[in-house]
Amino acid sequence: MRIIVDVMGGDNAPLETVKGVCAAAAEYTASYILVGNKPEIEQIAEENNLDLSRFEIVHTETVINMEDEPLSVMRAKSDSSMSVGLKMLAEGKGDAFVSTGNTGALFTGATLIVRKIKGISRAALAGVLPMNPPLLLLDCGANISVTDECLEQFAVMGSAYMKKMYDIEAPRVGLLNNGAESHKGTQLQIDAYKRLSERDGINFVGNIEANQVPFNACDVLVTDGFTGNILLKSTEGMGKLMMKTMKSIYSGTVAKMSALVVKKKLDAVKKDFDATEHGGAPLLGMSKPVIKAHGSSNAKAFKNAIRQAINYHNSGIVYDIAEVAADFAARKKLAKEQPAKAEN
Amino acid sequence: MRIIVDVMGGDNAPLETVKGVCAAAAEYTASYILVGNKPEIEQIAEENNLDLSRFEIVHTETVINMEDEPLSVMRAKSDSSMSVGLKMLAEGKGDAFVSTGNTGALFTGATLIVRKIKGISRAALAGVLPMNPPLLLLDCGANISVTDECLEQFAVMGSAYMKKMYDIEAPRVGLLNNGAESHKGTQLQIDAYKRLSERDGINFVGNIEANQVPFNACDVLVTDGFTGNILLKSTEGMGKLMMKTMKSIYSGTVAKMSALVVKKKLDAVKKDFDATEHGGAPLLGMSKPVIKAHGSSNAKAFKNAIRQAINYHNSGIVYDIAEVAADFAARKKLAKEQPAKAEN
Repeated sequence: MRIIVDVMGGDNAPLETVKGVCAAAAEYTASYILVGNKPEIEQIAEENNLDLSRFEIVHTETVINMEDEPLSVMRAKSDSSMSVGLKMLAEGKGDAFVSTGNTGALFTGATLIVRKIKGISRAALAGVLPMNPPLLLLDCGANISVTDECLEQFAVMGSAYMKKMYDIEAPRVGLLNNGAESHKGTQLQIDAYKRLSERDGINFVGNIEANQVPFNACDVLVTDGFTGNILLKSTEGMGKLMMKTMKSIYSGTVAKMSALVVKKKLDAVKKDFDATEHGGAPLLGMSKPVIKAHGSSNAKAFKNAIRQAINYHNSGIVYDIAEVAADFAARKKLAKEQPAKAEN
Repeated sequence: MRIIVDVMGGDNAPLETVKGVCAAAAEYTASYILVGNKPEIEQIAEENNLDLSRFEIVHTETVINMEDEPLSVMRAKSDSSMSVGLKMLAEGKGDAFVSTGNTGALFTGATLIVRKIKGISRAALAGVLPMNPPLLLLDCGANISVTDECLEQFAVMGSAYMKKMYDIEAPRVGLLNNGAESHKGTQLQIDAYKRLSERDGINFVGNIEANQVPFNACDVLVTDGFTGNILLKSTEGMGKLMMKTMKSIYSGTVAKMSALVVKKKLDAVKKDFDATEHGGAPLLGMSKPVIKAHGSSNAKAFKNAIRQAINYHNSGIVYDIAEVAADFAARKKLAKEQPAKAEN
């Protein structure tokens, strides 16, 4: 098992990413290939007393920033740590790739360099909403507009992921919508509802409204990337507000004393809502495991993203998705041929 | 000032709605016209010792339920409390209408019976997100799909509302989007961003991401009804989770004791997030004040919705909107004429 790590992207790179790799290496048996600015990585290691002797370091000069446009990964910055890492993954020099970098660039780069699984129309950015129990939301923002066929594929891919990664026998799939009834939503949701209802091999539980999301309504929630991004960020924002509000309640001295009493419980709550516990977001539908870690990842979050990449690779989810994708392609071919036959 | 009240819709009607009217009458000087099943209303009054002597009661037989389709307000149930109330408002028998009933039916009924202000393409369901400070979100779910012109009108109407109702000199208008940059979102958001940037008379502060919503990012947030519904319900769900989590923290005996210390603060937080404090959602763009109270309104929430209807009527917001709508119509006419001239 060889993990390729882009240590240059993100707000706290390369310090926290390199620390994260060291922490991962101490816990998980794998080879680690660090892609990034070698002198900078070595200097950080020296300053922070980190042992890099077990890692291969591939030197790259440029870095894709959050402001760079997605296609920069292929063009102006094709020599960046992200581009080089993706190429190495595509060439089989590693088994999985982890990056905290620019989401748009990573998604575009993975699509063009690593490539999608045959039969998958669109890969999806699949994020775990930090809740108890966790819920996989896809798409989280990579595909602003999608078709109902994409949503069907998201449902299948998300089910495969939650089955293997969270050990759920028949993950409940929900369609994010503005009401429970099958006629609700825009044409996209109406068409997707029909498709999902008719699809075998998934456990479709119907439309899910956003207020049900925190209350264990489903395991996999499918939607377009625009709406998914609104829901993901709303959840993030409200979670942050919750923590801020709890802190403000304990701001006085007397209150602080009483906080000690409930500290253990508060810590448990904090853990439930801690996005860093769940690692990063897999790009489901790519032919090899690509994990997007949060841009603001600290060492712990990055370590968890690496753990996730290892589990993702070992789980064989990519093969599961490839199998259903082949079935998708076969059905589509059949559907195309049948009207032609009918005409004859 | 005469308020027409549909006392039959909603989960807790007519008991809580009638109680709400009595509470409102004790506080606010106005005439109240109750529309609903007279024998039922009178029985409830007797059982609960409520004095109805100051109210006019208009008897109706049928009630529009949550399951009824929107057009039932005009067709199968045109004799319902909602339909009769809306007709009375249209005929000038009252100054404002409040209902906890079926949102779709109320919106359709108001559009067809009360009618929109001339020049407004779509009225909007404008909900106040229960936050500190509050934020007006429109559309909350009445218009699943909208045009960029609708969003511009929502911005103008929302500004007029927040200016008068919350005494904000230049309400900050935000466009709900999946990123800060002007090129973000679907074509709708890209076009709307341009329109809002060029529009005079509003204080457009740009794209707002969903994680900024709880942190005083703007006063008026415009979006289509599908996305607005997702955001509104996500906020509701997460708020509910927050309260549930706080309660669970204080479930033990020792914890309960410490809870007393912080009870005051908790109550203040609860008030901030209490949707019932803000009354209901106005249907902005209708030619007369129509207020949708939450379906699960209790007496207090319904009383607040009535207070809101009184303030809305007294504020003259409908006239402010009519003025800008006339300006919209004039600009549109001009835009239509100009290309025609250019062709000559």
